[in-house]
Amino acid sequence: MRSRAAVAFGAGAPLEVTEVELDGPKAGEVLVEIRATGICHTDAYTLSGADPEGLFPAILGHEGAGVVVEVGPGVTALRPGDHVIPLYTPECRECPSCLSRKTNLCTAIRATQGRGVMPDGTSRFRTLDGVPILHYMGCSTFSNYTVLPEIAVAKVRPDAPFDKICYIGCGVTTGVGAVLNTARVEVGAKAIVFGLGGIGLNVIQGLRLAGADMIIGVDINPARKAWGERFGMTHFVNPAEVGGELVAHLVNLTRTPFDQIGGADYTFDCTGNVEVMRAALESCHRGWGVSVVIGVAPAGAEIRTRPFQLVTGRVWKGTAFGGARGRTDVPKIVDWYMDGKIEIDPMITHVLPLERINEGFELMHRGESIRAVVAY
Amino acid sequence: MRSRAAVAFGAGAPLEVTEVELDGPKAGEVLVEIRATGICHTDAYTLSGADPEGLFPAILGHEGAGVVVEVGPGVTALRPGDHVIPLYTPECRECPSCLSRKTNLCTAIRATQGRGVMPDGTSRFRTLDGVPILHYMGCSTFSNYTVLPEIAVAKVRPDAPFDKICYIGCGVTTGVGAVLNTARVEVGAKAIVFGLGGIGLNVIQGLRLAGADMIIGVDINPARKAWGERFGMTHFVNPAEVGGELVAHLVNLTRTPFDQIGGADYTFDCTGNVEVMRAALESCHRGWGVSVVIGVAPAGAEIRTRPFQLVTGRVWKGTAFGGARGRTDVPKIVDWYMDGKIEIDPMITHVLPLERINEGFELMHRGESIRAVVAY
Repeated sequence: MRSRAAVAFGAGAPLEVTEVELDGPKAGEVLVEIRATGICHTDAYTLSGADPEGLFPAILGHEGAGVVVEVGPGVTALRPGDHVIPLYTPECRECPSCLSRKTNLCTAIRATQGRGVMPDGTSRFRTLDGVPILHYMGCSTFSNYTVLPEIAVAKVRPDAPFDKICYIGCGVTTGVGAVLNTARVEVGAKAIVFGLGGIGLNVIQGLRLAGADMIIGVDINPARKAWGERFGMTHFVNPAEVGGELVAHLVNLTRTPFDQIGGADYTFDCTGNVEVMRAALESCHRGWGVSVVIGVAPAGAEIRTRPFQLVTGRVWKGTAFGGARGRTDVPKIVDWYMDGKIEIDPMITHVLPLERINEGFELMHRGESIRAVVAY
Repeated sequence: MRSRAAVAFGAGAPLEVTEVELDGPKAGEVLVEIRATGICHTDAYTLSGADPEGLFPAILGHEGAGVVVEVGPGVTALRPGDHVIPLYTPECRECPSCLSRKTNLCTAIRATQGRGVMPDGTSRFRTLDGVPILHYMGCSTFSNYTVLPEIAVAKVRPDAPFDKICYIGCGVTTGVGAVLNTARVEVGAKAIVFGLGGIGLNVIQGLRLAGADMIIGVDINPARKAWGERFGMTHFVNPAEVGGELVAHLVNLTRTPFDQIGGADYTFDCTGNVEVMRAALESCHRGWGVSVVIGVAPAGAEIRTRPFQLVTGRVWKGTAFGGARGRTDVPKIVDWYMDGKIEIDPMITHVLPLERINEGFELMHRGESIRAVVAY
């Protein structure tokens, strides 16, 4: 069949909106009509050419929502008409990782997904001239229709709006999940969020949901202060305004008359900057502070610190897809959105047709959007 | 009163065994007759001059056991005759750290302890000429008699032998506690221990106690293979024999037919070498492996890794005094020793009189001792 898609033909070039050929679902696969997709920094990272694992030509996009159109042989968990969210982190429930009960990082199709193909080793996409086009993160939501492995699809309630819940396919789940699944923040905690973009704001609303007392947002963009406050931030710190002593400033901010040590119970890096990751760790409270790396660092960049930071009780960890199991947890987050426990609508700052998808990237690069969504 | 002591008059010089003057206990303090003390790498680190926080002249030693001789005004938890272990990590049960229920790193007397004095800001030790001598880690067990804050003393059962349980004052608790308190290793786990010295062997017996399935020891000293096996090690790896691909070798060793990802559930650095700390982290299993830093690194040394290691689920943490609360947990570890749940006797390879304490340091530097103990 044919599908409209924004194709990345090469690193650094704008996406090209065109028709592509798409094969139907093979065994264990489903065909999904994507109704909406977010534009995320990870798409931009790969498109820029900075991602050493980036492959071209490919159809990017990994934050979508849509409807199952057709299922391949052997598919049992889904049927045509189901409303779904594609999962770049699948959940097979059978691999060592899924069965460990300790991680969401299912490894069932990791190798082929990394090579831009379906589990059988081939792509479903090609140009009208027959040149194969690769899948991206197993999702390729920048195509109106896409094929996904059954284990990489979360079935969600049918009354949720596509142009909002697509954001649960990455940003919302990553941010909220980092708080609830990875850090397991408790009521009354003090937390610091570094970087108030599309992930950081979701960390903030995750902290509000978890009942944190103090939610400090850190960003060099003063316009993000109002954004953070909109979702529960209690304090804003602009590093440019604290004279280079960011860690000391943050630790001081968390001191109380009783606790003169200071430091946050939990910190979250949502920047991808390794120097910020270090500051996030070192802003943690001695004895128990936990710092969670969410941002994706440039290729080859390394985090560093004195081991004394760990020996005195700080914990350095990371999260991917917010520690969420896609098929199990994503439908719950959709419910939370529909029940008003979390917000999405105000974060969707721009909705564009596919033809204007490159504008969405520009809005993101200029820091003007929180989330730009393409509605098909 | 007078006490025999081994005094560190300066960095890099041998200890001098001499008589010193010791003031009696002030309010909240107790006088303890030290009956035995271990010699630990941390003493050697400070004595060498490499410790930027080292102060001289001082009476080193922090791994002792003895008997309370006299108590100062207001002391309620101890009385003369009590058998005790001095605690370089006190437990006041009233500070923000003790009340957090998340750390053992009591901060009640941290500032004064770091300056080598009692909580009132003064030292109890001086030379016969009246020159003040500093305390060390709040313990100074290289003196036959020493004064300690009440909160820095664990009362233990009276039938336990001093020349064995002194080791619980640091090495045993640090190693066993890292497994039980910090890593919380579960039955069936796979673990790797880097460095099979006085700490590493205790990590190994902690892993045996916790029911780990696979206990891999790593050391460049082949003589340590037999030592590791003595306490429960199931596999030995000499980095010199695996061709520079230590991490890959270790990950491979932990693979199973079902789990082809590989990596340890828990790893422990007992070397203080920051490159080893990195290898320990990167030998952890994707998704959930936890690496615990125990060793003390040289001043200024930094650990580093790609943040991808954390984002894909590995956790980097550290431990001090094995995460043990001194007054609460140390008496239990003494019970475990007396009940045969853990071993100490074979690790005490040398017992020396105070006059030969410098020989104990030499044995340690040459890798000939696991633990040399001074018996008064």
